[in-house]
Amino acid sequence: MSSPLVPSRLAKRAHFDKETIYTILDTALFCTISYSVDNMPYSIPTAFVRYEDKLYIHGSVGSHFIREIEKGIPVCLSVTLLDALVVARSAFHHSVNYRSVILFAKAEKIEDEQQKIDAFEWLTNKMVPGSWDYLRPVKANEVRKTTALAFKIEEASAKVRTGMPIDEEEDLALPIWSGIIPIETKRMSPIADEHSRDIPLPKHL
Amino acid sequence: MSSPLVPSRLAKRAHFDKETIYTILDTALFCTISYSVDNMPYSIPTAFVRYEDKLYIHGSVGSHFIREIEKGIPVCLSVTLLDALVVARSAFHHSVNYRSVILFAKAEKIEDEQQKIDAFEWLTNKMVPGSWDYLRPVKANEVRKTTALAFKIEEASAKVRTGMPIDEEEDLALPIWSGIIPIETKRMSPIADEHSRDIPLPKHL
Repeated sequence: MSSPLVPSRLAKRAHFDKETIYTILDTALFCTISYSVDNMPYSIPTAFVRYEDKLYIHGSVGSHFIREIEKGIPVCLSVTLLDALVVARSAFHHSVNYRSVILFAKAEKIEDEQQKIDAFEWLTNKMVPGSWDYLRPVKANEVRKTTALAFKIEEASAKVRTGMPIDEEEDLALPIWSGIIPIETKRMSPIADEHSRDIPLPKHL
Repeated sequence: MSSPLVPSRLAKRAHFDKETIYTILDTALFCTISYSVDNMPYSIPTAFVRYEDKLYIHGSVGSHFIREIEKGIPVCLSVTLLDALVVARSAFHHSVNYRSVILFAKAEKIEDEQQKIDAFEWLTNKMVPGSWDYLRPVKANEVRKTTALAFKIEEASAKVRTGMPIDEEEDLALPIWSGIIPIETKRMSPIADEHSRDIPLPKHL
């Protein structure tokens, strides 16, 4: 996990192909959005979805964070998936297997009502695939209360580390265990709220 | 997941007590560090550890990101734990249960060799508890090649959402399932590298 700004140092981990970048974006459930005001950095986690060549987020029209970035100031969106702890023979060579994406962009505010609803549908279906059509339809005032922002995926790069530790040659014969501890993020069994106990769990859940 | 900058909007989710903040920091395996250069935001994920009232990170002395923030410019450290998808009867009331911390601070560079080694020990033992004493001891040149930075936990806040969806009163009787889908992040069984296959897995793993 090192700087996205120095391809020379870690070029072996940098990827710029769409497929790698899109797969990471489509797997992650949230991103961290960073922006600057008077050269002071702020960041905030938020749900997002990729659709074609854009990322979409939403938020309350009254949210300070949304009102800052809807102006079109530069933002940095960061996505990180932790895949494994990499346990070497020395602390120095400990690492993590991860997949990350950094995207630099400026928000485009979506004004058209149907386009906003489309973005909400993509966001909802990313979080819970297949759920949109099952839910109570969205209301006009809910659309008015929510801002949708799009970010074009143009200036983006992925970084990926996979595989085993890379120990010093002279350490390989030490009687020290080395390897990886995979980390998995899993959706567990749904838990119904008190008004849903007699409602069959829909198939998409 | 909304702005840390507007306590008035979501004060119910804001926490400033040490215990809440420390527990989130101690659970998360990485943070996202954001900083600004010429009012352009940059962010990068990195491993960290809390020890007493400071966070510690490390990185290559040659890393661009480390060299920027070791100057003591303002940074924003963000940590997010996703606990559940919150599935409401309407898309509008979908949410997530999460725990997040935002910390504003400036790096203090650790110059003392033993203090650097202490920080590496805390970082290593956070990633794999109990591992430091098992590993090949750190070498002086490894310490020289690595920068350790500390960030005082002073300007920090946590946000936490727990519990079930909060639907519109008029939606509660709809025959639509509502509840939560817990998300768990788990360490799986360790996988040995090719030189460790005959070495017993140490107890701490």
